[in-house]
Amino acid sequence: MTNSFHPPVRTLMGPGPSDVNPRVLEALSRPTIGHLDPAFIQMMDETKELLQYAFQTDNKLTLPVSAPGSAGMETVFTNLLEPGDKVIVCQNGVFGSRMKENVERCSAEAIMVEDQWGCTVSVEKVEKALTENPDAKALAFVHAETSTGVRSDVKVLCELAAKNDCLSIVDAVTSLGGIELKVDDWGIDAIYSGTQKCLSCVPGLSPVSFSERAAKVIQNRKTKVQSWFLDLNLVMGYWGSDAKRSYHHTAPVNSLYALHESLVILQEEGLENAWDRHALNYQAFAAGIEALGLSFVVEEDYRLPQLNAVSFPDSIDDASVRSALLNDYSLEIGAGLGALAGSVWRIGLMGFASNRKNVLFCLSALGNVLTDSGMDASSARATAAAKSVYSSQ
Amino acid sequence: MTNSFHPPVRTLMGPGPSDVNPRVLEALSRPTIGHLDPAFIQMMDETKELLQYAFQTDNKLTLPVSAPGSAGMETVFTNLLEPGDKVIVCQNGVFGSRMKENVERCSAEAIMVEDQWGCTVSVEKVEKALTENPDAKALAFVHAETSTGVRSDVKVLCELAAKNDCLSIVDAVTSLGGIELKVDDWGIDAIYSGTQKCLSCVPGLSPVSFSERAAKVIQNRKTKVQSWFLDLNLVMGYWGSDAKRSYHHTAPVNSLYALHESLVILQEEGLENAWDRHALNYQAFAAGIEALGLSFVVEEDYRLPQLNAVSFPDSIDDASVRSALLNDYSLEIGAGLGALAGSVWRIGLMGFASNRKNVLFCLSALGNVLTDSGMDASSARATAAAKSVYSSQ
Repeated sequence: MTNSFHPPVRTLMGPGPSDVNPRVLEALSRPTIGHLDPAFIQMMDETKELLQYAFQTDNKLTLPVSAPGSAGMETVFTNLLEPGDKVIVCQNGVFGSRMKENVERCSAEAIMVEDQWGCTVSVEKVEKALTENPDAKALAFVHAETSTGVRSDVKVLCELAAKNDCLSIVDAVTSLGGIELKVDDWGIDAIYSGTQKCLSCVPGLSPVSFSERAAKVIQNRKTKVQSWFLDLNLVMGYWGSDAKRSYHHTAPVNSLYALHESLVILQEEGLENAWDRHALNYQAFAAGIEALGLSFVVEEDYRLPQLNAVSFPDSIDDASVRSALLNDYSLEIGAGLGALAGSVWRIGLMGFASNRKNVLFCLSALGNVLTDSGMDASSARATAAAKSVYSSQ
Repeated sequence: MTNSFHPPVRTLMGPGPSDVNPRVLEALSRPTIGHLDPAFIQMMDETKELLQYAFQTDNKLTLPVSAPGSAGMETVFTNLLEPGDKVIVCQNGVFGSRMKENVERCSAEAIMVEDQWGCTVSVEKVEKALTENPDAKALAFVHAETSTGVRSDVKVLCELAAKNDCLSIVDAVTSLGGIELKVDDWGIDAIYSGTQKCLSCVPGLSPVSFSERAAKVIQNRKTKVQSWFLDLNLVMGYWGSDAKRSYHHTAPVNSLYALHESLVILQEEGLENAWDRHALNYQAFAAGIEALGLSFVVEEDYRLPQLNAVSFPDSIDDASVRSALLNDYSLEIGAGLGALAGSVWRIGLMGFASNRKNVLFCLSALGNVLTDSGMDASSARATAAAKSVYSSQ
């Protein structure tokens, strides 16, 4: 016989899931009601409004997809693209190549604009690609690359797309709630995110939003969306504004309670305050990391405060440090992905996990483990550096 | 400012979600850990074994898809089919037509075998279709039609498929855990289910299982699966048996805690005992429904104990009865779907909700509401009829 599963209590400072606010976990366990219950429909309407706030948009087509961020990505591509379409895809990490996979599986063509892992998307290269491909339907790129910790300039890239009559598609899985993001002001046409990063909700849902222009592209398709489950023309029968909601699929009711609660928390704090908090905790953390003798992969101007790709000396064994942190401190940090596997750690300070306690705890634990590995990495020095950032505020 | 959402406490006796066991809600709110945490990987392995038990299979390719049942359906079709394939699809309710949509969106051809809503899938018609289409790759049908409450004969239909060298695809969304279902004994090649029906878990996941023959079809595809998110060749890098699990998408960690707990509960009760419990509560409920002067849509031999499509006299207003039950008794029953909209109620006795209290509560409430609507429908008579079934056991 199998026993109930009782997970260890971790501190989650990897690339996500991040530590979930206890209020969100409590909301998750509220009694399940029907997905067509009038009380639930009201909660759905509130969730849409709260998502509009988080995305800073008035887009009507704003909703959480009933599956993780990867499905949100697929929702965007599969609804906007038709066979034969051409899309310019920027790749500077793992998620650009996932976009390419998505484009190709829609029988569309991906024109790749490649930048080194850890570098921001090059505006010049994008401009060139747009000029060379005047028939491109969309420009797709990642706002906050979870695999490298780099930020790209959404505003400038969206302006370029618009100038070339291209839809802009933005991956905001790791940016939403953590750094400045303004869907309407920046002219983003399609955006998807995840719940388990800076919203500090449980994983499993993917908020998406589409401009009116993008919504029209979806409504006027010549071919059916190849996924029935993700077809927004059908999904909107349930999530739309009609008084009568028609059943499409059974919504993940409890996960949506959790998302609603996490968005209420974001609204209570205020979006700008959340961005500022992420920035401050990053600054303190970065001071500590440097005091430990470690360095960042990404140039300072393009770093994400919520996800730090940290390089370590060759003498340090990646896996054994992460194991020691997990086993001795119950602290999860992330391994490198793809081109950066084995050479960096990805340390998240996302949402609820972006706080002073986590910064000082992580620096202490990491300093001690590195010292055990023979590095001159004083925990006391690192935490003092971090604290001096906090006290200078 | 938006407030936290506190759902009303309902009794869920519609077509699902069903009442969730409080143990499952508690498991759902346990602390989130990483999707690559060794403790989580162990829980995944246990979940696969528990699903094998629930499905009665040794299939290695058995896992929960990270999205609701509709995505489970899509996982099956999109992984097994390639453009130009031909599939015989049996339609005797809503979900057969959803299968057709799935087949066609895979650029495959659906040969429809149609039966009246409320009737079981006709073995003769299927035999004829198989003979007429010797090049068909698969036969797809619904075990327990949630839209009508009818059961079809999986064993016989799978034998026919095998005899004609066809893969068998079975929709078990509403059957898993509620009625006899034996994937290996019956020779099912591909099956999908949901968590929010007879497993009494929260909605949002879809258990699937594939025979070795079906798994080979997926491995030997000539074209890529059109969905990246649902591509089992990729998903198995994470859910497979390799010691090293590679990241594909972020698993819905907490929902998987809930599924694990619901399967532990099923194992504790024993699968056969769960089937017997569903049968007994149905018998008591049916005696009560008849005592109320109502009737069943489905012939007795093909009725699902977990989902009862109940007809009512023309004098009764569908919506106002359901509203009265919801508003006065906080009791949810389901409306008719598709061809049966407005003329039947769908009353579920699924999983945790299949119990004596719910049977007697529903009969009492329904009897009173119908009496208020002018029917001669005595609650006392109905509950007495149900109780006499219980006491005769």
